[in-house]
Amino acid sequence: MDITDGAFAHAVREVKPVDPVSLAAARHLHERLTKPQGSLGDLELIGIQLSAIAGVCPPPVPHPVTVGVFAGDHGVTAAGVTPWPTEVTAQMVANFCAGGAAINVIARHVDATVVVVDVGVATPIPGDATGLLRRNVAKGTSNLASGPAMTEEQAWAALTVGAEVGRDAVNAGARMLVTGDMGIGNTTPSAALISAFTSTSPHLVTGRGTGIDDETLRRKTEVIEIALGRLGVDASPLDVLAQVGGLEIAALAGFMVAGAAAQVPVVLDGVISVAAALVAVAFAPEVRHYLIGGHRSSEPGASAGLAALGVVPLLDLGLRLGEGSGAALAVPLVQGAAKILREMATFDSAGVTGRDGLMS
Amino acid sequence: MDITDGAFAHAVREVKPVDPVSLAAARHLHERLTKPQGSLGDLELIGIQLSAIAGVCPPPVPHPVTVGVFAGDHGVTAAGVTPWPTEVTAQMVANFCAGGAAINVIARHVDATVVVVDVGVATPIPGDATGLLRRNVAKGTSNLASGPAMTEEQAWAALTVGAEVGRDAVNAGARMLVTGDMGIGNTTPSAALISAFTSTSPHLVTGRGTGIDDETLRRKTEVIEIALGRLGVDASPLDVLAQVGGLEIAALAGFMVAGAAAQVPVVLDGVISVAAALVAVAFAPEVRHYLIGGHRSSEPGASAGLAALGVVPLLDLGLRLGEGSGAALAVPLVQGAAKILREMATFDSAGVTGRDGLMS
Repeated sequence: MDITDGAFAHAVREVKPVDPVSLAAARHLHERLTKPQGSLGDLELIGIQLSAIAGVCPPPVPHPVTVGVFAGDHGVTAAGVTPWPTEVTAQMVANFCAGGAAINVIARHVDATVVVVDVGVATPIPGDATGLLRRNVAKGTSNLASGPAMTEEQAWAALTVGAEVGRDAVNAGARMLVTGDMGIGNTTPSAALISAFTSTSPHLVTGRGTGIDDETLRRKTEVIEIALGRLGVDASPLDVLAQVGGLEIAALAGFMVAGAAAQVPVVLDGVISVAAALVAVAFAPEVRHYLIGGHRSSEPGASAGLAALGVVPLLDLGLRLGEGSGAALAVPLVQGAAKILREMATFDSAGVTGRDGLMS
Repeated sequence: MDITDGAFAHAVREVKPVDPVSLAAARHLHERLTKPQGSLGDLELIGIQLSAIAGVCPPPVPHPVTVGVFAGDHGVTAAGVTPWPTEVTAQMVANFCAGGAAINVIARHVDATVVVVDVGVATPIPGDATGLLRRNVAKGTSNLASGPAMTEEQAWAALTVGAEVGRDAVNAGARMLVTGDMGIGNTTPSAALISAFTSTSPHLVTGRGTGIDDETLRRKTEVIEIALGRLGVDASPLDVLAQVGGLEIAALAGFMVAGAAAQVPVVLDGVISVAAALVAVAFAPEVRHYLIGGHRSSEPGASAGLAALGVVPLLDLGLRLGEGSGAALAVPLVQGAAKILREMATFDSAGVTGRDGLMS
C-alpha cells in the first residue's frame, strides 16, 4: 500500500481553501437584492458558500448533479445489531440498478444521475444490475465487535475507489455531488466513527437505525464501546477507519474529498454520510467548506457529527432511509440559492426604496 | 353585501372532507415500498395527504402550480410599526410583474406560475405592471390602531377576489396553489389575527417582521392589544377579519378556500399565510386538511398558528421574506412525495426481503 499514490492521495493534496473574495462579494450582493437583509435565511448562506466554492459571484447553478450510492456489508451484523438480513444490501443494489428505490425516484425528480457502486457487498447481486460499478474491495467487513473491521489496505483501497468515482463523475460533467449509501448494519460503524471523531460517548450517538428495540440498541451501543476500546489515543484517521469503519463509508469519504478537490459542492445525506465526512475532514480539513448539509437525519449521531463539522442541514423531515434520499431532496434548494444570486433584481435596478426610505 | 353569494360563499359551501379510503390506501402502500416503514418521515405524511385530497392512491403529481401573490397596504403603518415606506408595496408589485423578485426566481426554478393581484395597494404602481390582476378593493386598510381596518363589505369583497383568483387558476389548469403576499406592515394584522383565532397573547405572537428594533416591537404589540380590545367575545370570523385584518390577507383566505373547494392542495407560506389560513378555517373547517405547511417562518406567530391548524411545515430555513418564497421552495418536496408513492418498487415487485427475513 502506497499512501502517497492513487486518486485519494491525489485528491487530498489537491483540496484548496475556498475563495474569500467571492464569498465577500456574494455577501455584499445579497444586501443589494430586493428583499430585507437576511430574509432568505439559510438559503443566503448556501448561495454565499456556492460563490466561495466556485470562486465567482454570482455562482454557477450547480448542475448536472451525480448521486454516488456506495454499497457495502458489515460483519458486525453477526453481533445482532439489526433485524434486516445481509442479503438485503445486494437486493437493494439490484433495486437501485432497476430504478425502483426511493433514491431513483427522487433523483429523477430533481434531474440527478445515480451511480451505484459495489465497494463491499457480501452476497451475490441478483439479476444483471445494469450500470453497477463493480469495485468490490472485500465481501463485507469483518465483525468490529471482535477485531478490526478492515485492514488498512482495504480501507485505503475503498477510499481510493470513492475518490475515483468522484473524480470520474466530475470529469463526466457533474458540478455537484450527492452522497448516498446502502449497507445493512452500517449505522453501527457510523456511530462508532462519529463517537471517535467527535469524542462523544457512544450512548449519545448510537441510534435505532432502521428501527430496533431497546435490547438491540443496548447491544449495539455495547459493541461500539468494545470496538472503540481498541483505539489508541494517537490513532491516525486511517487506523480509526480500519478499526471501526466500513467499506462504503470509506468510499464516501474518498468521494467527498474528490469533489472538494474538483471545487464542486458535496451535499451530505444522513448519518452514514456524516460519519464519512468526519473521515474526509480528518484527512483534508478544508473539505468541510465544500460540504452542504442535505438534511438532519433522525439518527442522534447525525446531529453530533453535523455540529462537529459546523454544517447546518437544509431539511429536517425525520428521514432515516439513507441511499442519498435526503440529500437529493435538498438539491433544488441548493440550486435555488444560486439562482437567487444570479437572477434577482437589486434595489437600484428595480427602483425599489430601501428601509427607512433610503435608496440602497 | 350578500354573504350567501359570490365565489367565496360558493367555495365555502363546496369544501368537502378529504377521502379516508384513499388516505388508508396510501398509508398501506407506503408499508409495501422498498424502505423501512416510516423512514421517509414527513414526506410519507404528505404523500398520504395528497392521496386523501385527490381521492385516489397513488395521488397525481400536483402540477401545474400557481403562486397567488396578493398585495395590499395597511393604515397601521401610521402607528410606526415598520421602517419601510408604504410605497415599497407598489414598487414590489412592479418588481413581481417584471420578474425580478425572489418569488419570481423561485417560481421559475420550480416551474410554477406567479399571479400577482392588487387587492389593496395604496399608492400608484410604477410602470405598466404587465400581467397584474387589478382587483383593488380599497387603497389600503384604515389604521387598526384607532378603528376597524376594513368595513365588513371590504373584507367580504377581498375574500371574494381571492376565491375568484383561486377558482380561475384551477380552471386554467392549476393542480396545486401556493400562497404569497406583499404588504408593508402586514405582519401587524397577521399577528392580531393569529392572537385572536388561537387565543394567544399578542406578546407571544408578535415578531420583528422584516427587522424592527425593541421600541418598535413594543409599539407594534401595544397596537395589537388595543385593536383586539375592540373585539367582542362573540365576534364572527368576518368581524375579526374586518377589525384587525388586511385586504391581501382576506384575499389569501378566499384563495385557500377556493383551492380546497376544487380539491387541490394549498401550500402555505409564512406568517401572513398562516393568519389567512386561520381565517379560512374559521369559515370552512375542512379546509385545514387541504393545507400543506411550506415552511416555518421565523416570525413567532407562524409557529403558534401552524400548531393551531395542526400543520407541520416542510422547511425551516429561517425565512422571513413572504411573497410565497418559502412555500414555493417546498413545491419540489410535495411533488416528490407524490412520486414516491407512484414510482417506487414494492418489496414483492423488487424481490427484496423484509425485516426479520420476512417477505412482506
